[in-house]
Amino acid sequence: MVELFDDERLDYLVADESLQIIQSPTAFSFSMDAVLLSNFTYVPIRKGNILDLCSGNGAIPLLLSRRTNALITGVEIQERIIDMARRSVGLNHLENQIKMIQGDLKEMQSELGHSNFDVVTCNPPYFKTPSKNEYNKNEYLTIARHEVYCTLDDVVRACKLHVRPGGKVAMVHRPGRLVDILTTFRKYNLEPKRMQLVYSKEGKEATMLLIEGIRDGKADLTILPPLYIYQEDGTYTKEAKEIIYG
Amino acid sequence: MVELFDDERLDYLVADESLQIIQSPTAFSFSMDAVLLSNFTYVPIRKGNILDLCSGNGAIPLLLSRRTNALITGVEIQERIIDMARRSVGLNHLENQIKMIQGDLKEMQSELGHSNFDVVTCNPPYFKTPSKNEYNKNEYLTIARHEVYCTLDDVVRACKLHVRPGGKVAMVHRPGRLVDILTTFRKYNLEPKRMQLVYSKEGKEATMLLIEGIRDGKADLTILPPLYIYQEDGTYTKEAKEIIYG
Repeated sequence: MVELFDDERLDYLVADESLQIIQSPTAFSFSMDAVLLSNFTYVPIRKGNILDLCSGNGAIPLLLSRRTNALITGVEIQERIIDMARRSVGLNHLENQIKMIQGDLKEMQSELGHSNFDVVTCNPPYFKTPSKNEYNKNEYLTIARHEVYCTLDDVVRACKLHVRPGGKVAMVHRPGRLVDILTTFRKYNLEPKRMQLVYSKEGKEATMLLIEGIRDGKADLTILPPLYIYQEDGTYTKEAKEIIYG
Repeated sequence: MVELFDDERLDYLVADESLQIIQSPTAFSFSMDAVLLSNFTYVPIRKGNILDLCSGNGAIPLLLSRRTNALITGVEIQERIIDMARRSVGLNHLENQIKMIQGDLKEMQSELGHSNFDVVTCNPPYFKTPSKNEYNKNEYLTIARHEVYCTLDDVVRACKLHVRPGGKVAMVHRPGRLVDILTTFRKYNLEPKRMQLVYSKEGKEATMLLIEGIRDGKADLTILPPLYIYQEDGTYTKEAKEIIYG
């Protein structure tokens, strides 16, 4: 049993119905990007520590729990949304594996120390500071999507602070920001090592990118085969199905 | 009529046999990369000035002459190879459009001034400084492939010096160097605006990248659909055929 607020609903996170998540169209709903990042990132299988920044309603920690027995910590700044995430963790009986912390990713050192995680994942806000008009529409969504409380530089700096030397940082972002992302990763000694571009369909421009950096890694980037989401007829490709349906 | 040295041969540059080029397996032969870059780069059609750095045996200026009436200047440091390029220009009766200059790209300001070109193209050496052993094998090829006379930083600095504000710089390089390339382009205010990744086959990692920067451009990168060279059966894809056979 779980208590839901009026604007909330329960969704299945993956097609096998093994995981449920509390969503809200007015506060936060996870997107395909979280699913792609959870599939893309390296995880230690048996034990270890994973940190998920900008964790939202906890989609990435929940999805990662299917791939690993490592402990997973999620950090999210918005009270309303971390409350959704905590109830989802309880609903799936994952309290022993997933801990959701409300906090500002720029100020987590006292609580989380530094260099304590094997992997840090992040699905950050994609867009620069919003106009005042956007705030007025919906503050929850504006904060999740725009660099209101944290810039890309803040996010990458936090990733660097919390990942151990040799540990991995995985992020999903927009292709338009690739130069910003690679330069900022390198600035914080998170050398980009593995990248995959996501295309909604063949013949179209890339819509999303997945990037993995290694703290203090040697410079040499591998660019994986592209990932297509839809076929010509609008149905999922075989690869996308495997990711989405687990 | 053209005079060929013992190790040289005449090849067609494109399948329609409209262009010929002098090649030498021991000195310099153009590669698929030059063909891809010539196809990828923007060119002004009727008039303008194009500069090709690390021009080798002149494959890029020759190929570009099919797409534009602009004047094309090629710069190559190796005497032996620029001599091949000049004879190829003569052979194709392109002396009025293409000028090949022997020189060091780091020191062309007195001859070429600055900010005088609408477009600068470059297929630079891909690899870092070679071992002494590699020199001993073949100096011509070592210089063309390794950063002997110019580093990536030297190349991008020269591109910036010679392109006009708002003009375009197009380069072909290896995916492994993407972070170096994007950070160096940005360092010299050549904002990366358009990128295409080249894959030899579906399902494999990228083997080559094409990148275009605009001097003083606004940050926003578009990543084009991937370009595949071969089909499963080892024959060229339709897209590759269109590029190669013009």
